Amino acid sequence: MLLSGGLDSSTCLYWAKARGYACEALSVLYGQRHDRELVSARAVARAAGVPWRVVRLSLPWLAVSSLVGRKRRLPDAPLSRIGSGAIPSTYVPGRNTVLLSVAASLADASGAEAIVTGANAIDFSGYPDCRPGFHRAFEKVLAAGTRAGAEGRRIRVLAPLIKLDKAGIVRLARRLRVPLEETWSCYAGGRRPCGRCDSCKLRAKGFAGAGVEDPA
Amino acid sequence: MLLSGGLDSSTCLYWAKARGYACEALSVLYGQRHDRELVSARAVARAAGVPWRVVRLSLPWLAVSSLVGRKRRLPDAPLSRIGSGAIPSTYVPGRNTVLLSVAASLADASGAEAIVTGANAIDFSGYPDCRPGFHRAFEKVLAAGTRAGAEGRRIRVLAPLIKLDKAGIVRLARRLRVPLEETWSCYAGGRRPCGRCDSCKLRAKGFAGAGVEDPA
Repeated sequence: MLLSGGLDSSTCLYWAKARGYACEALSVLYGQRHDRELVSARAVARAAGVPWRVVRLSLPWLAVSSLVGRKRRLPDAPLSRIGSGAIPSTYVPGRNTVLLSVAASLADASGAEAIVTGANAIDFSGYPDCRPGFHRAFEKVLAAGTRAGAEGRRIRVLAPLIKLDKAGIVRLARRLRVPLEETWSCYAGGRRPCGRCDSCKLRAKGFAGAGVEDPA
Repeated sequence: MLLSGGLDSSTCLYWAKARGYACEALSVLYGQRHDRELVSARAVARAAGVPWRVVRLSLPWLAVSSLVGRKRRLPDAPLSRIGSGAIPSTYVPGRNTVLLSVAASLADASGAEAIVTGANAIDFSGYPDCRPGFHRAFEKVLAAGTRAGAEGRRIRVLAPLIKLDKAGIVRLARRLRVPLEETWSCYAGGRRPCGRCDSCKLRAKGFAGAGVEDPA
């Protein structure tokens, strides 16, 4: 389970638990602007009662992304590029390839049968590494390049939210009793969500669409 | 250029330079038993006159591999499993998936057109993540999941040594004037190569097969 501590990955964790998977949560720090997410990831993993690990990667070139680089301005045009096909400035080069690889390494070491990612319909309109074709291609890499694959076991890449928009994710999260008050979506990472970044706006729109008040 | 400082990746670097590529060397520390390789990687990059970066990943579960875990014994049966199809204990779960991902992230951030890996015929008899099928699958991940791919540029995975055995690599290295005295192959990482590990034995066999004295 790749767990950022946000709404999407937290919902995935509860989805996987409900499906009966024995889960292990993995948070990856890759130089995000803030570590606030990590507090949420720990709280969500604890609430779910699953083991949780953090690994830290230092990839300085990721600073070309506004999500990582401190000198770049976060986009505040709401959902500006969603659906336009253009890649947002918050795109982190190769991010999900790296995240899935790290998760795959853990999965291959521990004998896990699947990796779970929170990629979803909102993300994949803008980020190339959130699309179903990317996940299928990644499964083929794992079939070819892991011990599991060599031994005839497949490591699957599960993206249970892939067809949901934010309102759908909020509804699913409520049904699964995800501790929404513990989740963190804001890109900025202050004490309270900024309410202005794309991620805050998407979250607000999702809660509004689901007719649910955001406890966070 | 993924550059470990060993014979294979150092030869790749000189191969890419000879082909006219503007190279950037990238060394990844993932908890190997020793950092001795790094001294070699820096020396080789300097000799080749290319920029060099190091990134450090902390992936504690990799300790299941004898190449990383300090409690596991390195195999000293010479080339014991080569060709048998079995995976050696020095297999690091998902290692090359992670290494190629990190290189891909840099390539996507910098606009590079290719990633170069030292995978070769000796490796791919035992390690699933050194085989041509793995590289082709990985190229498809990059086509699907990077900015470059989304913009119609392909990031290629080049493995120029893929069909060579160690003697062939030594001959190529000599032709390309690779500073062989700077390269490091030993898994153990003392002051001098141990001469007993699989990697030392493969290297010795390669030099013998090429009729060349090993300057290291």
